[in-house]
Order: sequence, then structure tokens, then C-alpha cells
Amino acid sequence: MPIVAVIGDGQLARMMHTEAIELGLNPRVLAGSVDASAAQVFGDVRIGDYRDLADLEAIASGASAVTFDHEHVPNEHLQALIDAGVAVEPRPEALLYAQDKLAQRTRVSELGAPVPRFAGIASVADASRFYDDVGGAGGAGGGVCLKATRGGYDGHGVWFPATREEFEQLVEELLAEDVPLYAEEKVPFKRELSAMVARNRSGDVVAWPVVESRQDGGICRVAISPAPGLEPGLQDECRELAVRIARELDVTGVLAVELFQTADNKIVVNELAMRPHNTGHWTQDGCVTSQFEQHLRAVLDWPLGSAEPTAAYTVMVNTLGGESEPDMPMEQRVSEVMRRYPQAKIHLYGKSYRPGRKMGHVNVSGDSLEQTLEVAEDAAHFIVNAEWK
Amino acid sequence: MPIVAVIGDGQLARMMHTEAIELGLNPRVLAGSVDASAAQVFGDVRIGDYRDLADLEAIASGASAVTFDHEHVPNEHLQALIDAGVAVEPRPEALLYAQDKLAQRTRVSELGAPVPRFAGIASVADASRFYDDVGGAGGAGGGVCLKATRGGYDGHGVWFPATREEFEQLVEELLAEDVPLYAEEKVPFKRELSAMVARNRSGDVVAWPVVESRQDGGICRVAISPAPGLEPGLQDECRELAVRIARELDVTGVLAVELFQTADNKIVVNELAMRPHNTGHWTQDGCVTSQFEQHLRAVLDWPLGSAEPTAAYTVMVNTLGGESEPDMPMEQRVSEVMRRYPQAKIHLYGKSYRPGRKMGHVNVSGDSLEQTLEVAEDAAHFIVNAEWK
Repeated sequence: MPIVAVIGDGQLARMMHTEAIELGLNPRVLAGSVDASAAQVFGDVRIGDYRDLADLEAIASGASAVTFDHEHVPNEHLQALIDAGVAVEPRPEALLYAQDKLAQRTRVSELGAPVPRFAGIASVADASRFYDDVGGAGGAGGGVCLKATRGGYDGHGVWFPATREEFEQLVEELLAEDVPLYAEEKVPFKRELSAMVARNRSGDVVAWPVVESRQDGGICRVAISPAPGLEPGLQDECRELAVRIARELDVTGVLAVELFQTADNKIVVNELAMRPHNTGHWTQDGCVTSQFEQHLRAVLDWPLGSAEPTAAYTVMVNTLGGESEPDMPMEQRVSEVMRRYPQAKIHLYGKSYRPGRKMGHVNVSGDSLEQTLEVAEDAAHFIVNAEWK
Repeated sequence: MPIVAVIGDGQLARMMHTEAIELGLNPRVLAGSVDASAAQVFGDVRIGDYRDLADLEAIASGASAVTFDHEHVPNEHLQALIDAGVAVEPRPEALLYAQDKLAQRTRVSELGAPVPRFAGIASVADASRFYDDVGGAGGAGGGVCLKATRGGYDGHGVWFPATREEFEQLVEELLAEDVPLYAEEKVPFKRELSAMVARNRSGDVVAWPVVESRQDGGICRVAISPAPGLEPGLQDECRELAVRIARELDVTGVLAVELFQTADNKIVVNELAMRPHNTGHWTQDGCVTSQFEQHLRAVLDWPLGSAEPTAAYTVMVNTLGGESEPDMPMEQRVSEVMRRYPQAKIHLYGKSYRPGRKMGHVNVSGDSLEQTLEVAEDAAHFIVNAEWK
């Protein structure tokens, strides 16, 4: 059975491993350190640097596919691997649009897909012009949003200036630090959705139900599948959009298309991720094929699995480290949650406590949205913050 | 989070690892070789011998619980670990009844549970006497069955002599080889059932739905959950029996009670296993909590998870190596099955092809028993034997 090499040592690689085991694969991980989330549990762990071509060549040697749990591997290295005959999936031509948000905006807009008004910002003059175009911080569009084109995640690399002065000053400071920037109109949305699909190299695409995602300070905290009350027409539109982006951008593996749903039920593309995504964790316990299994199948160019849900609702809530770790030991917190909620599916990443850190998530399935949401919220909250009594 | 040490390197240990990862545990395995099924995928692999006390002490060091994927660790070594303060689960006092079939028959019969007529066989005279008691090979009970009290599995260590002469001769030969023996009345059954429960050290017990298991030459080939057409009263009887045995024998972890259902709908205990069991593999894809997760929770004395099924039917079919491996490579066989059956859940153990070898299994869930059975059978068959076209 084939070797799959995963570059990146976080929880996404870790959860790929659980599926790789069941599929009988020979998985291998390139990790930064032995105690990283994925390095703790893989059988074949290579310690190295994902920015180092020699380390990448070593991990790729003999692998049927090389894939990622993040988008930060230098594309020139990936190209070098491809030139040497390695199957890198997704390929750098596609990955670019998950790495560079300005390139993504440009490309997705060229596809005719709905995006916010945007512009590259290379000078304060650019900023000033865009500010006028959009109508200012208090304009119809809801104001201006400034983003680093690369390197942002979980709310990092995103700024919401309140005034023209603040905007221009931010631009000046960030450009001085060589942060590549673009600006976009802030979209006033009523909620966020995520349309996820998987596509294999042969071009087969399978779409999961569209989920509602709820963020907290730019970090995904809750995902609800299916998105409650989403009109079937709008659900189809979201799925078709994600399928089209996957095809047009020649994505292999899992693609997450994060979307805004506006007050007048329009859909606007927010971000793209080309790997298993936080808004897809619910699939581990609420779907025939999880996003991790599907990603592995897709990058190996195997046929894709069914994305049928196995429950009326599945809710995922992240366990995010709070201000300080409770006195009660982690094991006991987990145990208390298990006692109270025998239906809760607890997933932990082997990470130490840190405020705001994603340490795990809880999935709960059921017929009642209200109940599943309540249980998942309470369970996830207790694991990191404890309380009750 | 706690360290769990698993002794044994087969597929049961391997599948415990997938659940241990998601629970955020620190799992560790004692394996006979680096290429064993479980050793391929665990992060922390210790190569050693489960019959060597020093190796057992090393793997147990610092572990919150020590458990097994087989029953063959010498009980005196386990007792030595316990004396040194290690939490060995299940404990040797319970394990004995999974190791020694005569002890099991005696103990289970003392509990008032239904067992076939049986007797220890220490001489040809014992054999002769039992033969007369049971009424011979063609008696009301269906004849005599001779078993090794220890060491049997998958049909090994079980004999069905056709005549008195054959029976006595077998006994003479086996006793000369120092095989400890007992005999029992062969139960004429209409089908086999399996009642599985998990029990933690604190005494909580959770029972899964009773499944029908279909054997082939003594090897479990198919498990159907729930057992089709099983009367609710009989299902309750099976579950209560398994719960009672788990309590009375002080079992920790997963207990499988293999049962015969007779033509007149009586239940007779066949065998016990105190670990995840082949007839429980369906829980990986058809149940809120899989047997592997439940086993880990039980041996850590954590609260147990829900054993609710997530589908009307889930069918498991083993992929057993045939006479010879098909020309089509394994990866392609798997891929063909995925193309034909996107709903099939394929689990592979990383084992090379060998006739009769359990190389994996396929789970399929659905509303129609007929369809799920057909798909699971066809998928499992193709993976090892190929054909179609």
C-alpha cells in the first residue's frame, strides 16, 4: 500500500493519521519537533524543516503522494519536488490561491464569483484611493478591512481601521515592515458559511453539506452541519460555487470555501483553504467519509467516499484555551465531560494549555439542533475552562 | 493526559491507536517486531516479548493502564506488575476465564448461565465416560466436541470426532502431547450471536446491540448489527447475561460473549473474550462509541460512551486472504471497491497476503439489511480475491 507523506505537524496531520491507519496506508510526517501534535502519534516521524528542500526531498522519497496540513511550504521547493517526479497534492499552482489572498481575490473574481470590492495596497496613496472608492469606514459597505496578503490565520494579519487616518497610518507602518497588503470592503454579513468539497487528481468532486461557522475573534469556534435554515437554493449555490472553484483552480484534496451570507441572502467568498479545515471536523463523527479520509483518498487519486451525513445535525465546538488553565487536571476534566455527556465525541490534539489555543474539539450529533449545540458548547467549554459542581 | 500501554501488536492494538489519538492519549505498544500491524502506526513502539517480565515492566513504566490485544501474557507476570502497583486491565483473575476454556465453562455454569454439558478430560477413561453421558457422536446433543482448554483461536484447538474410536484416539494423542483438554456436547444451533459490553473499573457497564455472527471454518467472517429478527426478549436476555458475566468475573474493558441460539430459541454460552472483538468491529462506523474507544475508556476507569447505533443496520465482513493473491495490486483492488461502493468503510491492517489471514474488514451501514450485506460481502471479497470486470 502506498506511502503518503504529510508535511506539517499540527492537529490536521494528526487526524489524517487516524484515517491513514484504518485505510492501511504507510503514513509519514515531516515535523518540526518530536513533541508536536502529529509527531506524538505517527509511526514514521522525520524531524526537519518544511522550508528546507533537503528535508522535503527526504520525506518525499518513495511516497506516492506528498500533502500538507498548512500552506506555508515555499512553492519553489514544491516545484523542485514535482520536477523530480514527486506527486505533490495540491499543486503549487492551486496552493497559491490559499497562500496569497490578493491572488485569490483576483482569480475568484475573474471566475465571476462574488467577492467584496478589493485592491492591492502598495502605498498610502493606494489606501487613500480605495478608501474613497468604498465610501470610508462608515460607508455602505460597512467600512474598510486591511489584510496581509500572506501569512495570516485565525484572525492574525487582519485589521479593521475605524477611520481614514487609522487606515492610512496602519498602511504606512505595515508597508515599512514589508508586509504585503491589500484592502477590501468589509462585508456586513448575517452569518458565515463554509462550503467544503474534495477533488481528486482525476477530477471527481464530492461536496459535503454546507455548514454554518461561528467565529470568535477570527477563530472558528462552532460549526453546525447542515447550516440551519439555509434555503435549498442557496445551499446549492454554495456547493456549486465550491465545486467550480475546485475545478477552475485545479485543486486536489479538500477545499474549504469560507463564505459570508449577507442580510439579503447573497453569498460572498471570504477565504479558501486547500486542506482539511476546522469547519469540516464535524465529518469525523457525522458523515460517512470524514474530511481526513477524503483528503487522503483525493491526494492518492483514489475514488472519493460518500459525503452523506449520518445524523440530522452534527455540531462541532472547538476547545480554546481560556485565560488560565483550571486547577482540575485535564484528564479529570475530560472524564467529567464523558460522565455528563456519553454522546459527546471528544477529540484532543496533545497540546499544552495556552490562552486562545485550539486544543481539541467536541462533536455531538442528534435530531435536535438546540440540544446538540448546547451539549457540544458545554462539553467543549468545560474541557478547557471547567466550572460546574 | 495518561499513558496507555498496549501489549500485543495485531490489528486490535492498531485500531486502539486510532481511537487513542483522537482521545489525546499517549499510547505505547509492546510489539514483537517493527513491521507488526500495530508497530507500523504507533508513535511509541517498544520491541520486546510479552512473555518476558523485564519487557513488560519497561512498557508498563509510567503507564496509567496496561491492557492487551490478546490473552496470552503469562498471568504470573501480570501479577508481578500489579504487585508493583501497575493498573493491569483486565486483571489476571478475570483474564483466566478468557484463557482457560474449562475454567470458563465451570465458572459460567456456576453462575447459572446456560452452557453445554462439559467435562475436563485427563484420560481416555474420562473421554469414554463423557461420550456415554452425552449419548455419543450421534446423540441428542449433536455429538461430542473436544477442545484444548488453552491456546485455541479462530477454529484452532477444536476437534469434532465422528465416532467413539476417533474421539478416544484423539484424546490419547493430544494428552501424549500434553495438550490440556476438555470435552463438551456439540450444541446444534441455528445461528451464532455475540453480546458485547464494556465495564470500567468503577463497575459501570454499557452494552452494545446484540449482533449475529457468521463463521467460516471457525473464523468470524460476518457480523450483522443488530442481529436480524432477534426477539426483544431474547436480545435482553443476551445483554443481561453479558452484563452479569462482566460483573461476576470482574471484567474491565470490553467483553465479548459469543453465544449459540438454538432451534428452540435458547441461548447457550460459547466463548468469552476480554478485549475488543471481531464481532465488534462494526461499532467503528455504526455506533456512537466504537469498541476500541470504549475499551480505552474502560481500562482508564473513565466514564463509558454511548453505545447507540447510528444506522438501522451495520454489517461487517472480514477480508480473509484466499488461496492466492490476485494479480491486480492491492492498492488497485481497494481503489476499485471505493469506486463501486462510495459508502463502504474499508479498514486494513497492514498485513501481507496469506490464505485465510484476516487482512482487514469492511463496514457498511444502511436502512436495508439485504443491501448492506450484499455491498459489504462484495467489497470484502473483492479486496482479497478480486474478480468483476
